[in-house]
Amino acid sequence: MEPMSVYILGCGSALPTRRHLPSAQVLSVRGKLFLIDCGEGTQLQFRHTHLNYNKILDVFISHLHGDHCFGLIGLISTMGMLGRHAPLTIHAPSELETLMRPHLDFFCNGLPYEVIFKSFNPATSSCIYEDRSLEVFTLPLNHRIQSAGFLFKEKPRDRHLIKEWLTFYDIPLREYPAIKAGADYITPEGETVPNAKLTKPATPNRSYAYVSDTTYHAPLIPLLKDVDLLYHEATFAEAERKRAKATFHSTAADAGRMAAAAGVKRLILGHFSARYHNESTLLDEAKAHFGAVELADEGLTFEI
Amino acid sequence: MEPMSVYILGCGSALPTRRHLPSAQVLSVRGKLFLIDCGEGTQLQFRHTHLNYNKILDVFISHLHGDHCFGLIGLISTMGMLGRHAPLTIHAPSELETLMRPHLDFFCNGLPYEVIFKSFNPATSSCIYEDRSLEVFTLPLNHRIQSAGFLFKEKPRDRHLIKEWLTFYDIPLREYPAIKAGADYITPEGETVPNAKLTKPATPNRSYAYVSDTTYHAPLIPLLKDVDLLYHEATFAEAERKRAKATFHSTAADAGRMAAAAGVKRLILGHFSARYHNESTLLDEAKAHFGAVELADEGLTFEI
Repeated sequence: MEPMSVYILGCGSALPTRRHLPSAQVLSVRGKLFLIDCGEGTQLQFRHTHLNYNKILDVFISHLHGDHCFGLIGLISTMGMLGRHAPLTIHAPSELETLMRPHLDFFCNGLPYEVIFKSFNPATSSCIYEDRSLEVFTLPLNHRIQSAGFLFKEKPRDRHLIKEWLTFYDIPLREYPAIKAGADYITPEGETVPNAKLTKPATPNRSYAYVSDTTYHAPLIPLLKDVDLLYHEATFAEAERKRAKATFHSTAADAGRMAAAAGVKRLILGHFSARYHNESTLLDEAKAHFGAVELADEGLTFEI
Repeated sequence: MEPMSVYILGCGSALPTRRHLPSAQVLSVRGKLFLIDCGEGTQLQFRHTHLNYNKILDVFISHLHGDHCFGLIGLISTMGMLGRHAPLTIHAPSELETLMRPHLDFFCNGLPYEVIFKSFNPATSSCIYEDRSLEVFTLPLNHRIQSAGFLFKEKPRDRHLIKEWLTFYDIPLREYPAIKAGADYITPEGETVPNAKLTKPATPNRSYAYVSDTTYHAPLIPLLKDVDLLYHEATFAEAERKRAKATFHSTAADAGRMAAAAGVKRLILGHFSARYHNESTLLDEAKAHFGAVELADEGLTFEI
């Protein structure tokens, strides 16, 4: 099975530092690349991965703070210079198109591909992208301005056929789709062969959730249920809880509590405040609530 | 004398690479910082210098191609977060204000300082900045769109008084300014003391010219006459002369020829095309025309 991988391009918060850049990451699913947020420097960070700019299928922008979208215009312009022809769809709150169109018209005049904006309502959870194998849902967050997370979820897959038993029962090909989907088989003699004998369980459908920027937000719990990998912002340590509340951000403990409450499998912390020279305190504080936690860092890849 | 220094933040051309970022540099003159062009990543590069963002006095944007200005919005936003209060003046072609105002209003709402746009006409050479010790002139260039270079020129300084002779002639303080400016001194007895006896020559006024983007442009020669340090774009090697012509850029040889024709003291090459894995060919080709030439690189500082 092709890996589902998250490439961290930037995991700092609004103030860039020598160690962290503003938010941007790439989710790679079966050869398709999805860009999630696009802070300044995203295209520069891209150059340090082996990823191909022009394989970016869709872009998802969580909210319209600059550290999550100032890199878009440069990336769009560069993809044009590199000869992209495939349209690029940007999923974002509706104001982004209004803001960016005049810049695209002026700076990216003659772009060899189309930029399509699809706006979503950050206040509800809905499916904003779907292809044969994947769906993307918005996750309403609680930030100073409207903000949405994204849940990337593979569609349920077919069960694996056990060739030997299919041959044994001489099952015709036309029956295969139903059996893959879970149906029993009834022989011409009327005997029922249970599906469990003919198939092995499907490869599990994987899921990834990106949650930034937000406070701890209880309504997320059912939406994040059983997610394989959760990236949750952890801007502050507990010592800055007041500041986290005032700026509508999470502490690392909040991220750990959310991961535990939703029963996710693994947690990545990110969106670190510029005040920390390393994030070991954040890691420790999240770990007190949830064991399977790691720190994001530029250049790291997380496989699901 | 405080140094006049040029800090290279980015010296690549439009396509960023692993080695070079888009155009941006800082000129430091007697503790004042001037930012020249502001490609994407400028604020990130700033973090790697010891320079203080908030000491940036004025910004000069040569032309409105993205690789020379996409970093502005992020820098402006960050300076706000860092508590800048002093107004920031951006000297640029007039369309920049029209393009940026809606973004400033949306993304930098509540900015604690004022952003002032002063437009200039890139088609003429005129003084667009002046303070007690410095003048900045535009340099009309020849590019695909209107583009201007910038000449930073210290004003002529006073001659140095020779204290011993002033005491010897018992010259009153009120005469000092005239003598510093070059006047002879006439004693109460009517004797003329020539200025050359009372003063030593003034510290030379230094100059720096930034020339990017442009073809080789002969009308620049008198404007660049005797400049101490010239940064001239050298996007291409001679093998790409056709492409240089088509895109209105210079070759390294063009830059060398310009430096020689104008009789500048030193030349820096920059704005390198992404196609070069190192710029030794560019250096050699410029050197054939002008000896005192160096390659720009991110992180380098050139002192005048």
